[in-house]
Amino acid sequence: MKVLVTGGVRSGKSRHAEGLLVAHPAVTYVAPGPTTDEDTDPDWAERIATHRSRRPAGWTTLESRDLAAALTTPGPVLVDCLGTWLTAVLDHEDAWERPGSQVLALVETHLAAATDGLRRAPGHVVLVTNEVGLGVVPSHRSGRLFRDLLGLANQRLAAECDEVHLVVAGRVLVL
Amino acid sequence: MKVLVTGGVRSGKSRHAEGLLVAHPAVTYVAPGPTTDEDTDPDWAERIATHRSRRPAGWTTLESRDLAAALTTPGPVLVDCLGTWLTAVLDHEDAWERPGSQVLALVETHLAAATDGLRRAPGHVVLVTNEVGLGVVPSHRSGRLFRDLLGLANQRLAAECDEVHLVVAGRVLVL
Amino acid sequence: MKVLVTGGVRSGKSRHAEGLLVAHPAVTYVAPGPTTDEDTDPDWAERIATHRSRRPAGWTTLESRDLAAALTTPGPVLVDCLGTWLTAVLDHEDAWERPGSQVLALVETHLAAATDGLRRAPGHVVLVTNEVGLGVVPSHRSGRLFRDLLGLANQRLAAECDEVHLVVAGRVLVL
Repeated sequence: MKVLVTGGVRSGKSRHAEGLLVAHPAVTYVAPGPTTDEDTDPDWAERIATHRSRRPAGWTTLESRDLAAALTTPGPVLVDCLGTWLTAVLDHEDAWERPGSQVLALVETHLAAATDGLRRAPGHVVLVTNEVGLGVVPSHRSGRLFRDLLGLANQRLAAECDEVHLVVAGRVLVL
Repeated sequence: MKVLVTGGVRSGKSRHAEGLLVAHPAVTYVAPGPTTDEDTDPDWAERIATHRSRRPAGWTTLESRDLAAALTTPGPVLVDCLGTWLTAVLDHEDAWERPGSQVLALVETHLAAATDGLRRAPGHVVLVTNEVGLGVVPSHRSGRLFRDLLGLANQRLAAECDEVHLVVAGRVLVL
Repeated sequence: MKVLVTGGVRSGKSRHAEGLLVAHPAVTYVAPGPTTDEDTDPDWAERIATHRSRRPAGWTTLESRDLAAALTTPGPVLVDCLGTWLTAVLDHEDAWERPGSQVLALVETHLAAATDGLRRAPGHVVLVTNEVGLGVVPSHRSGRLFRDLLGLANQRLAAECDEVHLVVAGRVLVL
């Protein structure tokens, strides 16, 4: 079973995603990069730590932006989330200021690898992502770029999933 | 019956929420604080007044940010909306500039009281809220704080509701 | 059949909308104005051209912000999208800086005409729009104005449609 869990911030996505795999004793939890909240507001770090503590003790955390490799590890895999993955990829490649067509080509390459990994994943996969394209046009180019590319990533990876779950105020809608 | 009505701005949330209670002659309509539109653009005041005029004459308006007290008044209660409530609470406590962990603790306290009031509410309750977490990361800390805390409030109060209604372009989806 | 297709940017709305009419050999494709992406980032132009190339060869493109006239042409009509239509109307009328009540009255007039055209449309109609009201309050007045007015437009036109389709990560939810 491959599931993409999407929704807004603080909608309950991560909790729902973890709940989908909570019966499995040995999940690989993939953290693809630093979270925005910790960067911009260290006061939230404690709360995030609390959230982390609810994950079962037997789960393994893998900090890696190499989604293809992470997805093909044995056993269930939970990736939280695709937004931090995209940020990590663009940061690592120092790609934020490049022309749009170049950034798009770069992300397409990474998406092709991730999609291939998702197709070959031997166990259950739950991918958490964010919906960031439902506001007005962001005033900064980086914001416009991010929402376009994350929307693209969501579409591409959703196409390989069995289900897409939209989480709103803690409620789950299977699309 | 306890219902949380959520959706974007100008999606038809308030109209739908009012429709849920329109058969009741004596609803307490709770306005927890000033609306953003009136503050930032007085030209919209007339339109808002028009919207208000569609509420039945027998309804009572209660301007209060004390949700716990408002929810436990006899008869049906309509709160419109949780976003203005959160803003009113943070304004009153002068909390916008405090460290995130302090603001979170403050809002958790208010949410615990509101949730308890919701549990003890003797009549029908309809809570209107906003989804504000589906855009890119806001550039201002107050924006990031608000969307995190409103997302949290929506989750907490939704957990005590019988139904969550998502309104999109005037259409209603029961989650 | 009249359908409003809504969702965030890069959610797959346009592709879904085109798919609804792909069996029709002679669709009028209505482009109501320039797209934001091309204006703000010319690098995306190539990608948009690629998207355009997937439309069947027999389709006719009509560049016009006169929705009422466009909707009453014979045969199926696809409008992509209402956001560019609203922008084109406000640009043409030089209305962005006017008081809110004046802008609202202006848009109501255009919406009344468009709604009437939609009612009289002789063939299938698919309207693509955007959801832009699910983020925090935009910092600029033009952003606030746009999201309010587009929310209103979506509600008004949805009321005349048989179905509203919400597209999320390429998946379609019929509301």
